[in-house]
Amino acid sequence: MRSAFHHQLETLTQELGAMCAMAGEAIGLATEALLKADLVLAERVIAGQADIVAVNTGAEETAFALLALQAPVATDLRAVVSAIGIAADAQRMGGLAVHVADIARMRHPHTAVPDDVRRHIAEMGGVAEQLAGGAREVLLAQDPRGAAQIRRDDDAMDELHHQLLTALMDPGWRHGVAAAVDVTLLGRFYERFADHAVQIARRVIFQATGR
Amino acid sequence: MRSAFHHQLETLTQELGAMCAMAGEAIGLATEALLKADLVLAERVIAGQADIVAVNTGAEETAFALLALQAPVATDLRAVVSAIGIAADAQRMGGLAVHVADIARMRHPHTAVPDDVRRHIAEMGGVAEQLAGGAREVLLAQDPRGAAQIRRDDDAMDELHHQLLTALMDPGWRHGVAAAVDVTLLGRFYERFADHAVQIARRVIFQATGR
Repeated sequence: MRSAFHHQLETLTQELGAMCAMAGEAIGLATEALLKADLVLAERVIAGQADIVAVNTGAEETAFALLALQAPVATDLRAVVSAIGIAADAQRMGGLAVHVADIARMRHPHTAVPDDVRRHIAEMGGVAEQLAGGAREVLLAQDPRGAAQIRRDDDAMDELHHQLLTALMDPGWRHGVAAAVDVTLLGRFYERFADHAVQIARRVIFQATGR
Repeated sequence: MRSAFHHQLETLTQELGAMCAMAGEAIGLATEALLKADLVLAERVIAGQADIVAVNTGAEETAFALLALQAPVATDLRAVVSAIGIAADAQRMGGLAVHVADIARMRHPHTAVPDDVRRHIAEMGGVAEQLAGGAREVLLAQDPRGAAQIRRDDDAMDELHHQLLTALMDPGWRHGVAAAVDVTLLGRFYERFADHAVQIARRVIFQATGR
């Protein structure tokens, strides 16, 4: 019984890892769509969210089945409830990638990203993808050591976001308010994507260490 | 046993209702702080988030105790897991009110909200407060009929957000990019606050009707 439980929990963890990978790919493609003003890519990200939602639904059902049929307690109970939260975080990461892709689509055939902040956005996209990968690794290895890298990536995201806002607020900004609105929202989406990846890592680490 | 369970579930629901009320009060005060450039009020909202987090922690513990000690199944199981999600939504609503208050604090003694969009922000604050109240009512009455009002309020929020972005993007916008960045973020915070209130109502209604 106990071993059946852990086998199913392992399957659930694999599903969560897959969701992180999908969210990471989505934010990578969304960033590419944004920087290249690539409509087809943007639409691929938007359509792909349905797959992430489907895996989430499956993961939730697995979690409910585990709770109902195995009635886990203590650490096992917390692991299952934590999995539901992780799935929600990963789905939200996918949703934020869709928001980025939406902006790319809305501005097509133009680009939403003025030259002055291309580098910031490209780097935020790269760090976001890396964070999704880091969350996946921490999850699959159940290893708190990955947390240090996650923290570095999260700090890098904060720094990039700060630089982005500084560039926007600079009196020399010459791309007008409409572009500033897009870039403000983009910055927020990447920042939130990072927050959710960090939150996933936190849940795993709390689960593994109680801290 | 069953009645002890439902008694504790009722206590949990009361805690969730309290969290919605606290989040509603927070967004109301944050909006006032913003419009009046009132630093004391902004700081009250920021400090108050600790209370929402404390109630969330308590609610989570109650939920875990219910799961571990009563091993509920079927509808009862879903009610408890749903409660954990509702508590997270309500805490996030409080967090978004803090973001609004942060902008008020950051711009003090100036106001972050130019005259042209004062009405939009004031109304978004009002609708957000109303949505928190609506989520609380749906939760406490477990009554899907309140959902219609929630949907109307959510539509009103969407419309206000749309108007706000239109005002920002207008070529006649004469408040510069820095103000536009603040207002863009504010719009996003109110919109997300509304999304979470709607999500709470959805969880309750799904719980009550299976749809």
